Amino acid sequence: MELNNAIFQRRTIRRFKQIKIEDSVIGELIDAARVAPCGGNSQQLGYIVIRTPEKAGRIFEITAWGGHVKPHRNPVPEKSAPTAFIAVIAGKTDSKVVHADAGAAIQNVLLKAVELGLGACWIGSFHKEKASEILQLDESISVLYLVALGYPDEKPVMENINQGDSTKYYLDKDDVIHVPKYSIDAITQWY
Amino acid sequence: MELNNAIFQRRTIRRFKQIKIEDSVIGELIDAARVAPCGGNSQQLGYIVIRTPEKAGRIFEITAWGGHVKPHRNPVPEKSAPTAFIAVIAGKTDSKVVHADAGAAIQNVLLKAVELGLGACWIGSFHKEKASEILQLDESISVLYLVALGYPDEKPVMENINQGDSTKYYLDKDDVIHVPKYSIDAITQWY
Repeated sequence: MELNNAIFQRRTIRRFKQIKIEDSVIGELIDAARVAPCGGNSQQLGYIVIRTPEKAGRIFEITAWGGHVKPHRNPVPEKSAPTAFIAVIAGKTDSKVVHADAGAAIQNVLLKAVELGLGACWIGSFHKEKASEILQLDESISVLYLVALGYPDEKPVMENINQGDSTKYYLDKDDVIHVPKYSIDAITQWY
Repeated sequence: MELNNAIFQRRTIRRFKQIKIEDSVIGELIDAARVAPCGGNSQQLGYIVIRTPEKAGRIFEITAWGGHVKPHRNPVPEKSAPTAFIAVIAGKTDSKVVHADAGAAIQNVLLKAVELGLGACWIGSFHKEKASEILQLDESISVLYLVALGYPDEKPVMENINQGDSTKYYLDKDDVIHVPKYSIDAITQWY
């Protein structure tokens, strides 16, 4: 797939077909994550793939979804919920730089997901202690982010906005999510 | 360009040809940054493009480069230094999530740079107060990261490593930078 198609067609997906994702496909996502840049090349991130229905269901229970369109657009277990998750983990001394590293690695995952026909939702809002419990993590490790995965069952669209406009995504009457994004001019200064 | 080529050919560049980058080209990088995902779609990031030789030179003076290969590989002004920078800015209440947002947006910039024939170095190590002073930023705003840009004048290569191996990048006898990256198996658990 062309890079531009991945970058500009990528949208957060919150409704998934109930089709299993093959391990080899998820492996391609991790392969993209691992080659992302990171501070000092220190590679402090690890990845836990959660793809058995039992474990994925337990992780789903501790996640929060789409603040601006809930409860209407909350995924429903066995109907529209993600079929797998990737937990992005790091040592508990996680700095802002490690979060930036996670952002870059996750962006590679999200772009690769578009190419592979997958949908994804990057989740920062979840019960961290319960995630560690479900994944039986050592006390020295924490889950920074979750990436929900599945074959997409919706097609959100992007809208360009200017400075001062609302950034809240919204559902239209046809149940399509619209995602406002600032124009280049709204967010850029030139020196 | 194919997405995979951008993801896997992208390497941090620290030696640049002294050729001006057109504004329209830098605009394409910002266009990729603005459509990246972010927490709650709140879009708290802004971008300052620094491309006049005077301003770019002043920013260069306050940056630190390639800890594992310095001083040998420090870029030299008017010889191998970046010809432009993008400063990624946000309000001073910058949270870990905003740093993760910055990571995702910067990754889009870095991938798009590969496609456009540019090299880039994501810099977290710089004098933040002096950056704010040079850019005449309001007290409520800070620079999270700098992205150095220019047409590349080196070709670093990636090496696969296993858990326990050193992650330090290094120069070989031919003055090529080698960048070790963990294999998928070294950083992934499956549930």
